Amino acid sequence: MNKKIRIAIIGYGNIGRCAAEAVHMAEDMELVGLVDPIASLNSSPEAAGIPLMATIDDLPEAQVALLCTPSRVMPDYARKLLAQGINTVDCYDIHHDLADLRLELAEIAQTHKTVAIVSAGWDPGTDSIIRCLFQFMAPHGLTYTNFGPGMSMGHSVAVKSIKGVENALSMTIPLGAGVHRRMVYVQLTPEAEFAYVERVIKKDPYFREDDTYVKQVADVNQLIDMGHGVHMIRKGVSGSTHNQIMEFKMSINNPALTAQIMVASARASMKQQPGAYTLIQIPVIDFLHGDLDDIIRQYV
Amino acid sequence: MNKKIRIAIIGYGNIGRCAAEAVHMAEDMELVGLVDPIASLNSSPEAAGIPLMATIDDLPEAQVALLCTPSRVMPDYARKLLAQGINTVDCYDIHHDLADLRLELAEIAQTHKTVAIVSAGWDPGTDSIIRCLFQFMAPHGLTYTNFGPGMSMGHSVAVKSIKGVENALSMTIPLGAGVHRRMVYVQLTPEAEFAYVERVIKKDPYFREDDTYVKQVADVNQLIDMGHGVHMIRKGVSGSTHNQIMEFKMSINNPALTAQIMVASARASMKQQPGAYTLIQIPVIDFLHGDLDDIIRQYV
Repeated sequence: MNKKIRIAIIGYGNIGRCAAEAVHMAEDMELVGLVDPIASLNSSPEAAGIPLMATIDDLPEAQVALLCTPSRVMPDYARKLLAQGINTVDCYDIHHDLADLRLELAEIAQTHKTVAIVSAGWDPGTDSIIRCLFQFMAPHGLTYTNFGPGMSMGHSVAVKSIKGVENALSMTIPLGAGVHRRMVYVQLTPEAEFAYVERVIKKDPYFREDDTYVKQVADVNQLIDMGHGVHMIRKGVSGSTHNQIMEFKMSINNPALTAQIMVASARASMKQQPGAYTLIQIPVIDFLHGDLDDIIRQYV
Repeated sequence: MNKKIRIAIIGYGNIGRCAAEAVHMAEDMELVGLVDPIASLNSSPEAAGIPLMATIDDLPEAQVALLCTPSRVMPDYARKLLAQGINTVDCYDIHHDLADLRLELAEIAQTHKTVAIVSAGWDPGTDSIIRCLFQFMAPHGLTYTNFGPGMSMGHSVAVKSIKGVENALSMTIPLGAGVHRRMVYVQLTPEAEFAYVERVIKKDPYFREDDTYVKQVADVNQLIDMGHGVHMIRKGVSGSTHNQIMEFKMSINNPALTAQIMVASARASMKQQPGAYTLIQIPVIDFLHGDLDDIIRQYV
């Protein structure tokens, strides 16, 4: 009953650091390892007491691994860790690929009796839970998800991986009714050609659906603010009653919220049958620590 | 796969009528019976084609019963129907009793291999899901649930059951930070004494926690508007990052939304193991009709 859940963190960037803080704050968890090829360069107070491992093969004690890597390198870590008997939680943010990724990880997880929680951030993630709520509360109608204004971590990382880009910031600007503009600020290496970088960005699946502006700046770090937000609104019909209006809004530090949701999902992973799950497939009570009846008395 | 879920409705007041409409709109359900001692007096177009039963013993075909009765008479119906092999969905709204009621119904449901969904309205209900979300997204901080302004059906029905009250309307007025005033409008029978009615209302568990004003009026029906709303707000801490702000707001027709949530819960009841559940114990995907992977692709 008093045994703590043993957590490992893979990747020690913005989300990984916040995840370490959130695990420290969770009374039912302990951090047993950290894997990051460049973590020694980024050493921070939170990392002080955490055993730093060279590879994921050195995590025999961990029960759940939080995959705080860029989305595009994440699946490989998930495949290996699930097969090693370790549950995984990721914040994979590529909407059109996550359903297939879940199916693939579900098979590995079932074979190795582990649990993968896929896309455990805020969108995809907790916003997805709210979209489902809105849908069954008013089955006919429209839901709009308006992001920002704020820095998209997934989009910024995608740009940073382009050859010639030294640093990048992708801002999401809401234009209303679920339409967005992307404002991308890039800091280039001396030999890079701006026109080439701009073309690659605009063709990337992360950007090609949206109106995207790319601007070259001297120092991206001067522009960084990790705040973000969302405004979801549905106007719909319950039964035959129209004009049912529901809204969800938040203003948050993006990596801190993402990491906190991942930590709660690590807890939820311990309560699921082997398989792979998106957040909408898990009862919300499973993300909370404590006695079931106490939680019902407090929150229902 | 194409078999429709067979639904019965118990009680044909405001929520019962809306429930009939919501079942008619749901492609995966059919209404097989209606039980109401006074339904013949209230006949409406929606009730036209529905077999009207005298008692719940006449519902052999139903798989799920929607209990659209006042909260205080609901548990007796649930006990009997669960023992008859019929799942139940209720919108029991007495917050401090629902956890114990769930435990009692869970035992009956497990014995008879049925499912009870308890407190499947919007608060308790979908608001409870959002309170849990807010809690695990920012584990330290305060959540305020501000209701109204709007008509509370549960409170109005509780007042109507007092001797001497011919008709009643209880309005919930938000005062901020989760504090409310109750404005109760009563229409009395000729022999009733206002001071007595006022005293009974103020001592009732539905009212005794709140600042309650009781006013006598000639005709309550002139005041009725079924609109209601809620504004939930949490300011809290994710990991060690403060000032994470999240809000949920809605403006809705109260019986229509309550009935729609009950209908979605009837669907969810078909996917649970025997037992009794509040909404926070059920994955949100279970409330939606359709293929699991399609839903993930569409809403996550």
